[in-house]
Amino acid sequence: MEAASSDMALNADYGQALALVRAKSVDDVVATMRFAYDHALPVVPQGAMTGINGGANAIDGCILLSVRAMDRVLDIDATNHTVTVEPGIINADLKKTLAEQNLAYPPDPGSMAISSIGGNIATNAGGLCCVKYGVTRDYVREIKVVLPDGTLTRLGRKTAKGVAGLDLCSLFVGSEGTLGVIVEATLEVIALPPEPLTAVATFPTEHEAAATVSAYMATGLRPSLLEFLDGITINLLNNFGDFGLDDSVGAMLIMQSDAPTAASDVERFTEIAEENGALDVAFSDNTADNEALIATRRCVQPANELYARSHGGGQLIEDICIPRSAMPEFFDGLAEIRKETHTTIAVVAHAGDGNTHPSIFYDAKDPQSRAHAEEAFEQILDLGLRLGGTITGEHGIGSVKARWLTKELDEGSRRLHREIKNAVDPLGIANPGKMLGAL
Amino acid sequence: MEAASSDMALNADYGQALALVRAKSVDDVVATMRFAYDHALPVVPQGAMTGINGGANAIDGCILLSVRAMDRVLDIDATNHTVTVEPGIINADLKKTLAEQNLAYPPDPGSMAISSIGGNIATNAGGLCCVKYGVTRDYVREIKVVLPDGTLTRLGRKTAKGVAGLDLCSLFVGSEGTLGVIVEATLEVIALPPEPLTAVATFPTEHEAAATVSAYMATGLRPSLLEFLDGITINLLNNFGDFGLDDSVGAMLIMQSDAPTAASDVERFTEIAEENGALDVAFSDNTADNEALIATRRCVQPANELYARSHGGGQLIEDICIPRSAMPEFFDGLAEIRKETHTTIAVVAHAGDGNTHPSIFYDAKDPQSRAHAEEAFEQILDLGLRLGGTITGEHGIGSVKARWLTKELDEGSRRLHREIKNAVDPLGIANPGKMLGAL
Repeated sequence: MEAASSDMALNADYGQALALVRAKSVDDVVATMRFAYDHALPVVPQGAMTGINGGANAIDGCILLSVRAMDRVLDIDATNHTVTVEPGIINADLKKTLAEQNLAYPPDPGSMAISSIGGNIATNAGGLCCVKYGVTRDYVREIKVVLPDGTLTRLGRKTAKGVAGLDLCSLFVGSEGTLGVIVEATLEVIALPPEPLTAVATFPTEHEAAATVSAYMATGLRPSLLEFLDGITINLLNNFGDFGLDDSVGAMLIMQSDAPTAASDVERFTEIAEENGALDVAFSDNTADNEALIATRRCVQPANELYARSHGGGQLIEDICIPRSAMPEFFDGLAEIRKETHTTIAVVAHAGDGNTHPSIFYDAKDPQSRAHAEEAFEQILDLGLRLGGTITGEHGIGSVKARWLTKELDEGSRRLHREIKNAVDPLGIANPGKMLGAL
Repeated sequence: MEAASSDMALNADYGQALALVRAKSVDDVVATMRFAYDHALPVVPQGAMTGINGGANAIDGCILLSVRAMDRVLDIDATNHTVTVEPGIINADLKKTLAEQNLAYPPDPGSMAISSIGGNIATNAGGLCCVKYGVTRDYVREIKVVLPDGTLTRLGRKTAKGVAGLDLCSLFVGSEGTLGVIVEATLEVIALPPEPLTAVATFPTEHEAAATVSAYMATGLRPSLLEFLDGITINLLNNFGDFGLDDSVGAMLIMQSDAPTAASDVERFTEIAEENGALDVAFSDNTADNEALIATRRCVQPANELYARSHGGGQLIEDICIPRSAMPEFFDGLAEIRKETHTTIAVVAHAGDGNTHPSIFYDAKDPQSRAHAEEAFEQILDLGLRLGGTITGEHGIGSVKARWLTKELDEGSRRLHREIKNAVDPLGIANPGKMLGAL
């Protein structure tokens, strides 16, 4: 039970659970929720426990309710392009199953090899492909959920369109277990996209890279991936694996296009990168090379963790999403925050969406180092809000950012959140304290 | 006030309003809602009054609150591809303003020349382009709403992604004025798409056309438009204008592709139509011809109204959305319903989305004719639900289908709807009776 009491958040507390239920069926979930309701016991729904904000962490006296073992594909409808799954299935496993039928479920969070679809829905997970293909919510047509009192209900619809009633399906997407437990989902799928072309551009500083992103996205062309890595991140990657990236540069952009116009898209990207001061732009249409490059990009978090472990173990991960045009200003602000708080901050970003992930490192055994990191964390959240952004683009609130949610939402919205939470979960047993806990 | 008491629904009752407020500003809306809240008076929010289910109809003793005069474009952000507008702006006017900057707001309900963006959001309006570009909800990033007690709040976010809190923005999209009044919206826009190629295929019966749609969509290719017209609709169009359509056929499909692969898309469509028994397939890359054809398609409702006026004036419009693969079966069921109820039913459909609009004609002065039409209406709704569909793909519930919503939603969902409505609008003054009135 101890092992099931915390997700992958590095800096979130967790409590002492009463019990762990490993549900194998919808009936198990219904029975658990009824019991919890009858005894007014808090329930923490859990999937693959890969969240990084403590959303699935135990709280004192709770029932941990894992749906990880409910991992079947219930139906693939290749004609209507939908798939119906249980919530415990791992994102990458679903992708593999669909690929056999030339179908794809696009959302690809960094955690896709280890995170579950139920967790992806509960956090409205994003990823690298969002810049073209959108986020989890865009693919969820219908869900079955068990409400706090144990009632099983169906929200949304299986059809391409539908406006019958309030959009309660979207309300539950991203609700982080605070309204009920997702036990089944029907997702839209698409035809498997073709292999992309890839361009890699390097820049003297973050500024030129950010300006390139803003200018390229303003053309209206939709890359299938547009990732940013700052110089520190490139260095940490080279330390992690023998990747041989040019770590003398200030920033790097990886751009892909899987459109029929990929060749001209990549050409246009090159022009814009060069206009904005790129040091170098390279291309590849070699699938193996491209996959290796994206795999390298997906090593950023392990590389950051390796660095953290050898520097006192502390890491705070941000998830600021800002308007793309504000990215140069964001990096200016970040430079000041680094200076003022004496912190090392590495930045990777889903740049096409303006979704940045600064990682703040600190020595967990040094209270002053931790305090500096926390100060930087707060200042970055403030900076993001000041630039018209949000405190979380895709990771969610969990327990780590619950206090910050009150800064982003206005009083009317906070009240609405409380009223709706109370209406759906009057006993307050559905993942209490998480996301909405400070509102 | 009488003129402002009913929308374009042909068969919805309306009551006697107390007052009509023509708001010119957010403050006007706030003041009106505060007054209504203090006096527990029902408020019916209104845009351009073009809905067809009575959603904006007066109820006895209500305040009609029109935001039609709030029609400014507040900001166009061409770099970040967003536009911020007041709710009263007409959809087509917004499109025109954006086109000057090579930008587009895709959602294109049949009513786009006359309907307002606020109304489009309140009903989550669809249209012809949805098959590729999605519905209104997919473009709404942030809204400002005035809650039933007069509180102004901001829901959603302006950034490309964001998961801070519950998705209350989506909850208000499609809520038909039952939760509050939308007073501002920030919408995602895209680069103006290129001119499409067009193909027109004719078929001996609806069956071959429906099978073509299902097979073409299963390829994963995304047409930018895929419309179905049955033989009766084609005849009514020819009677309405001198369109010269071949009205000896059983059905017609209009397909467009604006993709870089348009030429091969149209070719593939032709192959599939021929494999499925098309009588004829014609193409066009002539912009004027294509626009004329789509303008003809957009005449379906006026053509139907002309027919209705010369046949007793009655028309019931359905909005069933079903899985595309169920369309052949749907037409079988429809044929039986026609026979059993002795009704004339013309069908147009956004076929790529499985969204069908059967129009049932009747003599409004003949109670038996009306009873037959109502029987057909109910049977078609039943048929849609039986085939895994929804009673409304894009028109909404309003007052006309409120009773039917109880059939589509299960008990858990109905309860959730009631709880959330009561939480947000405890006095029940926001468009009472509409959409949620029978739950």
